[in-house]
Amino acid sequence: MDIHKLTKQLFVKNDSKIVMYVGDGLGGLPQQPGGLTELETAKTPNLDKLAREGVLGCTIPVAPGIAPGSGPGHLGLFGYDPVKYVIGRGALEATGIGFKLEPGDVAIRANFCTIDEKGNITDRRASRIPTEESAPLAIKLRDVKIPGIEVFVEPVKEHRFVIVLRGKGLEGHVADTDPQATGVPPLEPVATAAGSQKTVDALKQFVKQARQLLAGEKKANCCTLRGVASKPALPSYEEVYGLKAAAIAVYPMYKGLAQLVGMDVIGEAKTLSEQMDVLESAWGDYDFFFIHYKYTDSSGEDGNFDLKVQKTEEYDSAVPRIMALKPDVFIATGDHSTPAMLSSHSWHPVPTLLWAKNCRCDRSEAFGENECSRGGMGQFAAKHLMTLALANAGRLGKYGA
Amino acid sequence: MDIHKLTKQLFVKNDSKIVMYVGDGLGGLPQQPGGLTELETAKTPNLDKLAREGVLGCTIPVAPGIAPGSGPGHLGLFGYDPVKYVIGRGALEATGIGFKLEPGDVAIRANFCTIDEKGNITDRRASRIPTEESAPLAIKLRDVKIPGIEVFVEPVKEHRFVIVLRGKGLEGHVADTDPQATGVPPLEPVATAAGSQKTVDALKQFVKQARQLLAGEKKANCCTLRGVASKPALPSYEEVYGLKAAAIAVYPMYKGLAQLVGMDVIGEAKTLSEQMDVLESAWGDYDFFFIHYKYTDSSGEDGNFDLKVQKTEEYDSAVPRIMALKPDVFIATGDHSTPAMLSSHSWHPVPTLLWAKNCRCDRSEAFGENECSRGGMGQFAAKHLMTLALANAGRLGKYGA
Repeated sequence: MDIHKLTKQLFVKNDSKIVMYVGDGLGGLPQQPGGLTELETAKTPNLDKLAREGVLGCTIPVAPGIAPGSGPGHLGLFGYDPVKYVIGRGALEATGIGFKLEPGDVAIRANFCTIDEKGNITDRRASRIPTEESAPLAIKLRDVKIPGIEVFVEPVKEHRFVIVLRGKGLEGHVADTDPQATGVPPLEPVATAAGSQKTVDALKQFVKQARQLLAGEKKANCCTLRGVASKPALPSYEEVYGLKAAAIAVYPMYKGLAQLVGMDVIGEAKTLSEQMDVLESAWGDYDFFFIHYKYTDSSGEDGNFDLKVQKTEEYDSAVPRIMALKPDVFIATGDHSTPAMLSSHSWHPVPTLLWAKNCRCDRSEAFGENECSRGGMGQFAAKHLMTLALANAGRLGKYGA
Repeated sequence: MDIHKLTKQLFVKNDSKIVMYVGDGLGGLPQQPGGLTELETAKTPNLDKLAREGVLGCTIPVAPGIAPGSGPGHLGLFGYDPVKYVIGRGALEATGIGFKLEPGDVAIRANFCTIDEKGNITDRRASRIPTEESAPLAIKLRDVKIPGIEVFVEPVKEHRFVIVLRGKGLEGHVADTDPQATGVPPLEPVATAAGSQKTVDALKQFVKQARQLLAGEKKANCCTLRGVASKPALPSYEEVYGLKAAAIAVYPMYKGLAQLVGMDVIGEAKTLSEQMDVLESAWGDYDFFFIHYKYTDSSGEDGNFDLKVQKTEEYDSAVPRIMALKPDVFIATGDHSTPAMLSSHSWHPVPTLLWAKNCRCDRSEAFGENECSRGGMGQFAAKHLMTLALANAGRLGKYGA
């Protein structure tokens, strides 16, 4: 079911405010079976109070058993079916470094590599060239000129950089040129679908000029191309929900994901407290606020249970400033679970709290995985969270007579 | 997933009896967070007993967050995907006044309007003409004759009436002719898809003759057409479930919805007690009984919490007469929630009780929203309720070897 077919038909506008407060990788696991998870161990008095007044549930980011990356994890929360809407690797990489893709842009993950005098690859990652050496080379590649096409080159890290092509008639169906082997030359760009020939021609020119610009470099004297992808065609929040939406995030990836669905990225916050400053100052200007908190995920990825507990407490500590603004709907959730015990994203359902006047309180006692799995919202696909938010904000009309 | 693909393949026939007892708008909300809902407040000893012996759950009529009208609400309960099967406005209006649509019929909601001597609309609702004045005019329009097409005209209320066209080759894709403005003439009927030209031609003739028949009327001297729709092509209960099904309802809308899926509408009951009389007398003749109780919804729509409590107790009071007939499967549920606190249909999951010998009792204590949200059936799309009913009646074979 395309839920946006319904929401486009049914949304109504009003003065309500919705806050979606995302603790990245919020869900966790206990250190031993039957123990408490990071969230259950953490002292979260503010979220616990809202749990008692609101309704809990567990969101399933993509499908049971599927551990999502940040892209599909957030698309689900934003109400976009993460199986239907795929953000190509190149587009995600560009988004992740804060590059603002425009419709029709094609983005490519590129690797510096080393070739010998015969043109065969001797090192696919240019001896893992350090960023301080590779970044100036990426910037040098901005001198590539392709008639009729605007070329952007952005350094990323070590041997990695991003290329974005902007121009008419570009499509993103082009095979990777990394041969996944040494002793052979990079592959030629080849279209994998009709309509991408213009991109292929541009990329051939790019590589040719890049080799000239990099001639003489010891490590990074050539490049390979991967994950060629158009900007995904995601309908905007305004279009599908009638919401003027803002994103308040610290990291470029989450700003980028929010931009892909048409949210305004606001503020330059570097800390949670600064994010709250931004929220307070923009409160009157938007219907919907996506607030992203990163450290519940990064501490989980580090496998540091105690640090994740501490970061979860920090996540909780900002809640009073949000609630002081009197949102109509407040949601606390994650884009996926990142149990410290696994040091990685996982498939476990994500604890989710919805607080609103008419949410049908389920008499939960606290915000945690166990309470959420028995909560009044049940377990449900994350892509349905936005319709629940809209309904609780009085922003959805009746379906059918 | 098209569940009927499976049921058509798997259904078996036996002597079991299934009762689906629908309390319209059954779900509710507490008057304050953490309080009791209408259903939880009501004394429902009969349903509570069945809750202790049976299994509870919550049905989601269409999708999380979506508040349905009666049409999609009942289609879901009947096991028809309410997003796939859409009952057009005209067909629902005809159904709602008890008109028995036949396959191929096209139904239209029509409005009497007032036009001036130039043909421009001066009042889109004919001065909200009272029903006692408008009904005879609708009946007068039965004199419209269109070669090869049978024309039915039925009064509804005030300026509203229904037209049904019956004949070969009619389709329902025709734009509304209400210009949504005064000072301009009604729009000409226009086909919005190939195949509907014959309907367009018939409607042009209808309007032309209607103007002649209404000439001289002060208020209602013309009409506009809206919601043109064919009878929806719903496979029958017999076809998809192998069930001989009967509907026992008081109001035409619910009789009509049941007829659309091939149920026999039986009896002329005006009260719940008379509905039980009909049930008892027809018990031997059918496999499946849909019993519709309206007042849990209408009291909710009125915003009257106490009255909804009282009507819920009346709903409960008929249960012993149903159970005395020894059904194999008994289901109590609603087509949607209608919390008195909202005075409207809502998106909240609907408390649902299934009682059968092998239902896997979940040790619930009573029938109410909170118990249901933690019940053994979990939360699930209403469209899956019919397969649970069939399975519990021993009427579904094994899928695959």
